[in-house]
Amino acid sequence: MKSEIIAVGSEMLTPFRQDTNSLYLTERLNEIGIAVAFKTIVGDRKKDLIYAIRCALSRIDVLILIGGLGPTEDDLTREAVAEALKLKLRRDAALISALAARAAQWRIPLPSNNLKQAEVLEGATILPNPNGSAPGQWLDTAYGEHRKLIMLVPGPPGECKPLFDEECLPRLRQIAPPRAIAKRTLRAAMIGESVADKLLAPIYTTYTDVETTILAGAGDIQLTLLCSKSSPQLAKRRVDELAAMLEETLEDWLYSSDGETLEQIVLYYLGLRQATLAVAESCTGGMVAARITSVPGASRNFLGGAIVYADALKNAFAGVTPEMIAQHGAVSAEVAKALATGIRLRTGSTLGLAVTGIAGPTGGTEEKPIGLVHIALSSAEKTESLEKHFRGDRQRVRDWTTQQALDLLRRRLR
Amino acid sequence: MKSEIIAVGSEMLTPFRQDTNSLYLTERLNEIGIAVAFKTIVGDRKKDLIYAIRCALSRIDVLILIGGLGPTEDDLTREAVAEALKLKLRRDAALISALAARAAQWRIPLPSNNLKQAEVLEGATILPNPNGSAPGQWLDTAYGEHRKLIMLVPGPPGECKPLFDEECLPRLRQIAPPRAIAKRTLRAAMIGESVADKLLAPIYTTYTDVETTILAGAGDIQLTLLCSKSSPQLAKRRVDELAAMLEETLEDWLYSSDGETLEQIVLYYLGLRQATLAVAESCTGGMVAARITSVPGASRNFLGGAIVYADALKNAFAGVTPEMIAQHGAVSAEVAKALATGIRLRTGSTLGLAVTGIAGPTGGTEEKPIGLVHIALSSAEKTESLEKHFRGDRQRVRDWTTQQALDLLRRRLR
Repeated sequence: MKSEIIAVGSEMLTPFRQDTNSLYLTERLNEIGIAVAFKTIVGDRKKDLIYAIRCALSRIDVLILIGGLGPTEDDLTREAVAEALKLKLRRDAALISALAARAAQWRIPLPSNNLKQAEVLEGATILPNPNGSAPGQWLDTAYGEHRKLIMLVPGPPGECKPLFDEECLPRLRQIAPPRAIAKRTLRAAMIGESVADKLLAPIYTTYTDVETTILAGAGDIQLTLLCSKSSPQLAKRRVDELAAMLEETLEDWLYSSDGETLEQIVLYYLGLRQATLAVAESCTGGMVAARITSVPGASRNFLGGAIVYADALKNAFAGVTPEMIAQHGAVSAEVAKALATGIRLRTGSTLGLAVTGIAGPTGGTEEKPIGLVHIALSSAEKTESLEKHFRGDRQRVRDWTTQQALDLLRRRLR
Repeated sequence: MKSEIIAVGSEMLTPFRQDTNSLYLTERLNEIGIAVAFKTIVGDRKKDLIYAIRCALSRIDVLILIGGLGPTEDDLTREAVAEALKLKLRRDAALISALAARAAQWRIPLPSNNLKQAEVLEGATILPNPNGSAPGQWLDTAYGEHRKLIMLVPGPPGECKPLFDEECLPRLRQIAPPRAIAKRTLRAAMIGESVADKLLAPIYTTYTDVETTILAGAGDIQLTLLCSKSSPQLAKRRVDELAAMLEETLEDWLYSSDGETLEQIVLYYLGLRQATLAVAESCTGGMVAARITSVPGASRNFLGGAIVYADALKNAFAGVTPEMIAQHGAVSAEVAKALATGIRLRTGSTLGLAVTGIAGPTGGTEEKPIGLVHIALSSAEKTESLEKHFRGDRQRVRDWTTQQALDLLRRRLR
């Protein structure tokens, strides 16, 4: 079965906003074996909307319309579907009472244009929307000689997603051929996207029944494996088989076999080793700590640390002397190591992690160019440091440095 | 003139990836007065692609196809356009030599499927792509009785955007009626989206010739005003007039009259007052510092600070005694003020900014629920604090707290 999602709303045709509901709906549709073949975004113009609906019905079996169900003049989805399919709209008495009750509850008069929301397509089933005033609609109908399933769901994500899950999915599941889905997400750090693809493509392309997607972030690769079969065991076996081969190929780069983030993994290892961590960040200015503290319960193993942006603070909070900075420069392996050791001793943590670098856009020299970073990790046993040169703008250098710092920590703890 | 953007690529029909090129192209098209009426996303299936192209040509004048121009079997845009318009494809000799030269430069043999990239639509102009191997194409043709402008541009953003700017825009500008565009972006902090819209809608809706878009983030509102007129003066006058009225209504909430971020504004004020800043962050764990240090040149006025996640670090880095924490709790106005004062004194900064709170998902009590935060700001003259209750999950509480901390600082410095 092929589907199309039409997202309705002029704001999504501006440079500022994008349809995001469709990502969620695509995931849920794929899980029951329905592919999304087209996505269309169309504004609040009835003529355009009718065009889009007719185009969609000529090419797919399942049509999901998101948005345009509110009470304003711009909300035209109901009318457009009626016109495109030559169906009548009727005002539903129960919906009118519900709208009136809602208005009474809020102690406001029921505006007459609100009654639009009580209009139901001939032959459609009303889909209750407990999170908003506009109900959804489900239409199982003929278009020419073909059966078409058409869903109207509200646009606000807080209404769209639950209504789709509770009302549309169960109905679709009954109609679509039964499928069992298995899914795994592998993640790897500090491997380039093209290197990863060169290594992995020869493997995953042989598994034509498993859909493999590679997503690349700053120093991060996420591989999603999705397989749809007649039985759950069969689907799981294929995914696990491929995952095992990919994991072996990814070697040390692999940090997560089931989708966990790098900061989650680092905190997991810290917990396992009953170790605590403190950080001293210069060029990343708090980004490493911000990622670690994004994980609930981080406080069990993360003590905190210092943002040692000014050289005086490298001294005050991590005991790095002005002499050392004068001798080696603030961006040096020596200072990185001294920061890591200093923050460890000052905080009494098991591990100290430090970052210093030149994020740009200015401040680079021939000897120490923009993108040069030193990352150091200190424990009572040893203090090591890593020199890296990252390309790109200030944000990119900071993002990659943060990822590299967390990955250095992961490799030590593993 | 109405346009449609078709983004080609199966990966954009997965739950993981979205077309983003179209946001950029929409902005540039709007600037020369061309509206985007539809966006379509279609996978790498020739039949679907032909459907999408035919649908588009039935409803708009300008069609931009992004992607599907590479050398692989999945790259079908050229063939699909040829079939949809019943045009021939010819292999261009100059393009073949260029591909061969490129291969020679990389010292690799020219794979035969690469020759696909030398195929040109009958009647099309080749658009050079200095950033990749696949050139774009421009086709000014008749479809039925109507004139259609069709552009094929490569999918990678680093190729798509420059090629569109340098090759497509100048050609479109010659054909589209001349327009002058004026644009302004206003930003406001810590005002709810619905409150903002209730205050501002009665004003901006009367300016029907200025397109106003409101974008809401965590405690942040961004208003973009766009006006297209026959003369630049006329367009600028209307935008400035409306901006002045909106600015007056936004009062103290307004922090930026031309799109600057809150952290840029804060650093601007710090520079103006020749003041320095240090932070002590507990629940935001470095997020305030990370935002401040995202601005180039932040080091002129930002010294750094401490991430005082563990109570022991509140003492070690900001001198907050265990007794005070025992008496008032780590999340209290007293501790927030002591942190702000302590970090100011320890670092020698003009201003100390501190955050402590309960981000969740656990750790809340009846008296101190999840979402409770205390933010304090200290200078030699005075130390003030602010109590806030933010709703939502851990990430939302942390995002809003970070924004509130920066806004407290802005209001003091203004």
